[in-house]
Amino acid sequence: MGRTSDAREKILTAAQSLIELRGYSALGVAEICKTAGVPKGSFYYFFESKESLALAVLDEHWESQRSDWARVLRGEGEPLSRLRRLFEETEAGLRAGQQSCGTVSGCMFGNLTLELSNQTEPIRERLQQIFGAQVEMVEKVIAEARERGEVTVGDTHEAARSIVAQLEGQVLFAKLYNNTQHLQALWENCLSLLSVRPDKAAVGP
Amino acid sequence: MGRTSDAREKILTAAQSLIELRGYSALGVAEICKTAGVPKGSFYYFFESKESLALAVLDEHWESQRSDWARVLRGEGEPLSRLRRLFEETEAGLRAGQQSCGTVSGCMFGNLTLELSNQTEPIRERLQQIFGAQVEMVEKVIAEARERGEVTVGDTHEAARSIVAQLEGQVLFAKLYNNTQHLQALWENCLSLLSVRPDKAAVGP
Repeated sequence: MGRTSDAREKILTAAQSLIELRGYSALGVAEICKTAGVPKGSFYYFFESKESLALAVLDEHWESQRSDWARVLRGEGEPLSRLRRLFEETEAGLRAGQQSCGTVSGCMFGNLTLELSNQTEPIRERLQQIFGAQVEMVEKVIAEARERGEVTVGDTHEAARSIVAQLEGQVLFAKLYNNTQHLQALWENCLSLLSVRPDKAAVGP
Repeated sequence: MGRTSDAREKILTAAQSLIELRGYSALGVAEICKTAGVPKGSFYYFFESKESLALAVLDEHWESQRSDWARVLRGEGEPLSRLRRLFEETEAGLRAGQQSCGTVSGCMFGNLTLELSNQTEPIRERLQQIFGAQVEMVEKVIAEARERGEVTVGDTHEAARSIVAQLEGQVLFAKLYNNTQHLQALWENCLSLLSVRPDKAAVGP
């Protein structure tokens, strides 16, 4: 009965929440199936291996996060205020997760990069694509701000990568201290990293 | 024969290199003992559990890294040039590791923070102490630079944490892309995050 149409979705949902709480290596297929409430045979009907499940979890998580990022970064408002909203929504998302499970679980992409990217090439490649897409989305906003004369940064790609690096680093601290307030430094740091003209730094949310 | 005086050291060395390559959860005590060349009974003579081994590995790794950081950050030269040297030595260390094992394994403290800090309180506390000490060491250098009128940053503690966050974020990218050149952005980003006066930014290494 595990091969009903929703078994794959149940496995993905269980795997995503288990990976967020405990990482990838600590999990076994049996535990994932037990949490999902599907028989083990069903797992191998949908997924070749635990690694292919991890890739599917990454894809699904990124599909959802990408649409959030696109809504914010390509949405209404001035370019810099959209970046600010991205930081605020990221903090709110981590806080909601903390309230529901007791701890800040951090960024799944950052977690799996540090846990796995030097061990499995398919997962490394997928994470490279995801972070590459994030950097590209941020870069477009920086380029817009530069066209409007609001930032003076030279290399927009490098600047975007530094902002995503700062985001990942502050999320690491939020997880370490189980405190999402660490993310409040992101906006000021973003202004510094982008060499924002002082008269533009007061842009509202 | 496992309880000879060097068995503990052999276990620590094996655990450190295995944890750097594959994280904590993927390892079992049997594999650590096999790599160390000591019998399993010997492990439990020295360590109560795998968790207490992880704490000992963190302590030993931080003892060594702290003395490197102290040599650089409390050493000769102007404050900002010491920060620059820290970034350069970090990059050189990651490159040396990459040459010896084929991949950039990243920062053990960052890796274990994202893998474990929301799962075991003793490891979370130890990592908080270590990152707290790193931030404090960087903060002292920033305060020195501020006294000399070289940086105009307001909150030296927040600035130090942002620099360590940027370091962790760029090390994440170095691991993801197996390329230590990502760390070359650290110096420019540090100058931006510290609001370094332009006439002071050209400080040599």
